[in-house]
Amino acid sequence: MSNASSISLPVVKVNQHGSTEVADELAVEEPLEIRLESGPEEARSVKNISVTMRTPGNDAELAIGFLFTEGIIQSKDDVADASHCFIACAENKENVIQVNVRPSVTANLKNTDRNFYTTSSCGVCGKGSINAIRTVGTYIDTKDHNSVKQDILLQLPEILRQQQEVFDSTGGLHASALFTTEGDLITLREDVGRHNALDKVIGAALMADMLPLGDKVLLLSGRASFELVQKAVMAGINIIAAVGAPSTLAVQLAAEFNITLIGFLRGSRYNIYTGSHRVRHSSLVYNYES
Amino acid sequence: MSNASSISLPVVKVNQHGSTEVADELAVEEPLEIRLESGPEEARSVKNISVTMRTPGNDAELAIGFLFTEGIIQSKDDVADASHCFIACAENKENVIQVNVRPSVTANLKNTDRNFYTTSSCGVCGKGSINAIRTVGTYIDTKDHNSVKQDILLQLPEILRQQQEVFDSTGGLHASALFTTEGDLITLREDVGRHNALDKVIGAALMADMLPLGDKVLLLSGRASFELVQKAVMAGINIIAAVGAPSTLAVQLAAEFNITLIGFLRGSRYNIYTGSHRVRHSSLVYNYES
Repeated sequence: MSNASSISLPVVKVNQHGSTEVADELAVEEPLEIRLESGPEEARSVKNISVTMRTPGNDAELAIGFLFTEGIIQSKDDVADASHCFIACAENKENVIQVNVRPSVTANLKNTDRNFYTTSSCGVCGKGSINAIRTVGTYIDTKDHNSVKQDILLQLPEILRQQQEVFDSTGGLHASALFTTEGDLITLREDVGRHNALDKVIGAALMADMLPLGDKVLLLSGRASFELVQKAVMAGINIIAAVGAPSTLAVQLAAEFNITLIGFLRGSRYNIYTGSHRVRHSSLVYNYES
Repeated sequence: MSNASSISLPVVKVNQHGSTEVADELAVEEPLEIRLESGPEEARSVKNISVTMRTPGNDAELAIGFLFTEGIIQSKDDVADASHCFIACAENKENVIQVNVRPSVTANLKNTDRNFYTTSSCGVCGKGSINAIRTVGTYIDTKDHNSVKQDILLQLPEILRQQQEVFDSTGGLHASALFTTEGDLITLREDVGRHNALDKVIGAALMADMLPLGDKVLLLSGRASFELVQKAVMAGINIIAAVGAPSTLAVQLAAEFNITLIGFLRGSRYNIYTGSHRVRHSSLVYNYES
């Protein structure tokens, strides 16, 4: 099993004219175990934090982005290094990554319960999940002066698609992309898991010292769920545009943290679910606020 | 927060003609905690097995389907009953469900580690994940005499779409559906999480005493990942058709268990990744095997 992001496999392609056996590119899916080494120098310990099914590539970004969006680490400076562990089995050469936290830093291991956001506070409910984020977010008070012009917003999916044509011949990857409000692409990451694609983007931004991301726009290639908005909240993102539909809890979370959430961004259309004040309409378009 | 499967929220809809504020249907996303009560009558104990973000509805099917596909319970007869727990918080009335296993049954709690399939055997790798399924599957030796006509296969997405029009006005739900090989729809379930939609279908089939499902066809509205094929393996399904792309590990898992895996089933086209012998081509179509 490869650690490339796509591999070629034989497939029988059938259409109205008949069928042919050809080689086709498929998105690679492999498990990644994320380990955290932490503690003072005289008493370091290693903990298995999570296993995620991901597309190999940018694993350090993924691991660091995940640890940050889960509230386990707070900044770039917490991280000493991150590298793959080479363990016995020949099949899994790059499927374990270990992030070493500096001895001076206390990792928040209380948050290593995978259900941290969904089981905290008042029990299991959407409201409790939203409240849990308040207790760990470093950048949750998003700045309000960010905005994006409608003309630019409408161009973002096409820019993403053009870039994806380069990276993705498989039809099987989710993408997350970070843009400036002028529409310049900063970072694009793809993965079989949409949460992994976003963790990679946020991990890359964290290591590039770009957080908080309150002057950027996040584009999601698919739907916007609670989990994706939660990760954006953690990184200080305040404009999220999704090509697909949002869920109710995604909208409620965006409203709670004063985030602009846009869905169904396709062609010349989009829906604004929360924070419409951050979208600047061109003068030719009727302004619903006037 | 509602326990309906969709709710209406205000949204600003923008297109080239301007913008209007309307009410729009959104897919509900809420956490569900799955609890398992098990043990002999004199020493019953309750364990929190999992929390999943799901669309409310068919929660008992979801919980029972999840416990079965994870290898924690083995049959319908293991289950005494399943019901929501009403706990303190007013917001989460139906977000905890408890499945009670009969006192005579030993639940396989070794498998309650959420990463069971991805961390077993030789460490963390795709091959290890596939091998782990062998150790728990009740119906993994799928019968081989199942087959589906191409004409019927090509009709399934349209049948799904027609039914989804009834259930889904949100554009935000994944669907899983079980069909006879004659193309008759047996069960359709939708959810914000694709794994939940499939657990609901399998849970419903388990409780209706329909397992193993070796004479049926499973249709997935989106992509086919390792996790979805793993659940199908557990239920004895041997024909999986997906509207989207499969991952490499989904194909490898399907090959390992002699499952027919079809992807990109759209219009008059589809790709067969594994098990092409179960698709019967009509006489007018060139048969690649001849």
